[in-house]
Amino acid sequence: MQRRSLIGGVVASAIVLRAAPSWPQGDPLPSWNEGPAKQSIVDFVTRTTTVGGRDWVPVPERIATFDNDGTLWTEQPMYVQTVFALDRVKALAARHPEWRTTEPFRSILADDRDQLALLSEKGFLEAVVATHAGITTEEFRKTVLDWLATARHPRFKRPYTDLIYQPMLELLAYLRANQFKTFIVSGGGIEFMRPWTERTYGIPPEQVVGSSGVTKYVMTAPDKPMLMKEAKVDFIDDGPGKPVGINQFIGRRPYLAFGNSDGDQQMLEWTAAGEGLRFMGLVHHTDAVREYAYDRNSPIGHLDKAWDEAVRRKWTVVSMKDDWKVIYPFELR
Amino acid sequence: MQRRSLIGGVVASAIVLRAAPSWPQGDPLPSWNEGPAKQSIVDFVTRTTTVGGRDWVPVPERIATFDNDGTLWTEQPMYVQTVFALDRVKALAARHPEWRTTEPFRSILADDRDQLALLSEKGFLEAVVATHAGITTEEFRKTVLDWLATARHPRFKRPYTDLIYQPMLELLAYLRANQFKTFIVSGGGIEFMRPWTERTYGIPPEQVVGSSGVTKYVMTAPDKPMLMKEAKVDFIDDGPGKPVGINQFIGRRPYLAFGNSDGDQQMLEWTAAGEGLRFMGLVHHTDAVREYAYDRNSPIGHLDKAWDEAVRRKWTVVSMKDDWKVIYPFELR
Repeated sequence: MQRRSLIGGVVASAIVLRAAPSWPQGDPLPSWNEGPAKQSIVDFVTRTTTVGGRDWVPVPERIATFDNDGTLWTEQPMYVQTVFALDRVKALAARHPEWRTTEPFRSILADDRDQLALLSEKGFLEAVVATHAGITTEEFRKTVLDWLATARHPRFKRPYTDLIYQPMLELLAYLRANQFKTFIVSGGGIEFMRPWTERTYGIPPEQVVGSSGVTKYVMTAPDKPMLMKEAKVDFIDDGPGKPVGINQFIGRRPYLAFGNSDGDQQMLEWTAAGEGLRFMGLVHHTDAVREYAYDRNSPIGHLDKAWDEAVRRKWTVVSMKDDWKVIYPFELR
Repeated sequence: MQRRSLIGGVVASAIVLRAAPSWPQGDPLPSWNEGPAKQSIVDFVTRTTTVGGRDWVPVPERIATFDNDGTLWTEQPMYVQTVFALDRVKALAARHPEWRTTEPFRSILADDRDQLALLSEKGFLEAVVATHAGITTEEFRKTVLDWLATARHPRFKRPYTDLIYQPMLELLAYLRANQFKTFIVSGGGIEFMRPWTERTYGIPPEQVVGSSGVTKYVMTAPDKPMLMKEAKVDFIDDGPGKPVGINQFIGRRPYLAFGNSDGDQQMLEWTAAGEGLRFMGLVHHTDAVREYAYDRNSPIGHLDKAWDEAVRRKWTVVSMKDDWKVIYPFELR
């Protein structure tokens, strides 16, 4: 009720990503409650973009990086890419009779959650990679888009791309309006994200950094080259891999970084270690009613060491329950 | 003489990269002679940017990729990065007494070119990587910039960053003025190029794709993380690695690609295999007087199969001697 009355005066825009600059009263972050978190963001953007100020950052250096799962969209009760991979195993099972007796495929096909819980992360990752391999990058892209068009979140009964955070969309738009270049830096698969991040977040493929498998250039017919996805992990863009990925793909240190879990700790540390004013933020999942509440004991989005470090170093910790008026864009409609 | 009179009327701009849009008579490529090469470029840009035309390309998809060595700057008589690596061996020799008896270091320190010529490319590459390792990415960046500030090309007696091609600078500016995003996709080291490509070509670090070594995230002191460069090759962005690198770093297929050697063949093939109108170009080094003349038999910038393919498929082959009025920006001053 309180939430509804707070946003009652806001005219919802169909084009959410472009709404911020023309928002009523010039508030670029209308879905954020007034408070220290919102204030720290506005202060940072104002100080880094004030010409002549001591914290001014030249436009080409205005780099902002965002984790995806749990930072820009909902990651519970399973990472979306995990759901995709499980569905791929089922879709491909007829072509792989050997999976009926091979783990983890057997357990996946049998929906044997007890057995799946015992699998090592590495074993599971290899299985995921196997279901993503043996096809061209273009076929994979189509598979992702086809899946997203029909898959629905088990609780919200909506497409996964509906379950993005309205306050973060506003933050992305606010940063871009202030000439920051916005990047995703995610442990998720780079080829799983790129087909839809531009439409969903306004982040183009060339600004998406993620985990990847090996691809191979093959000539399938005269003058018809393809890139084949192989069943081999190339790069894991998580934890200490995030600064490595940022250095490899972007080649500049971010001025702002946002995450939500221990997998983002090193990205925030790397950002903080730069000269001048930097912004480090964590989304804390505190809202079991509107989204999910989890932190130190969650297997997905585990937030423990990064939280302690954020508190110690006075980084911004955003409470979804307290700081966000709205969680999802569809609440505005 | 002819060349001088042709450019006599041109007012040289100190900011070469921004000169094109305001060039006299509105010619965006004033250093290019009229002819099929120039015409093919102008046709491509006009057709892909004409709204309502059948070849129109949406702005976000306007990706152009350029090889660096031999395409944007001079690669003879040695790749610039090779010269840098040899100088690094000499600079670091005092700290590595073992190099006096270990190949290829011994031959490098003794300037034993006969012996160096016998080394495998792999052995040499490993040595190069060794001289680039054991320091942080920031120290390496500084090393590159310090070296470029003092190193001089043996023939032209100028900084290597003076030996960039004026016609290609105009092409980069022309493409950007037409909302193409310009990328480097080079076999050269990504960390060797990024410190200077923005100033030299107007291409920011995040639009530079190249070969890379492994880096590791290490905490050198409390809250002081560094990325250490290790003596291990991570990715070779050459030949079939170029489409792989384009897919990995950019995630979109280029509409225009320019190279100069067989190492660029697969990048051009990958570009050509996209739907709609695409532009594939090769710089042919035909000017021994103003630059160098080499192709099928050159160990550096070997142009053989890619040339045959370009002729067969009617890609644009630029003759430096015939198509370029000016080679280097300093000729305009």
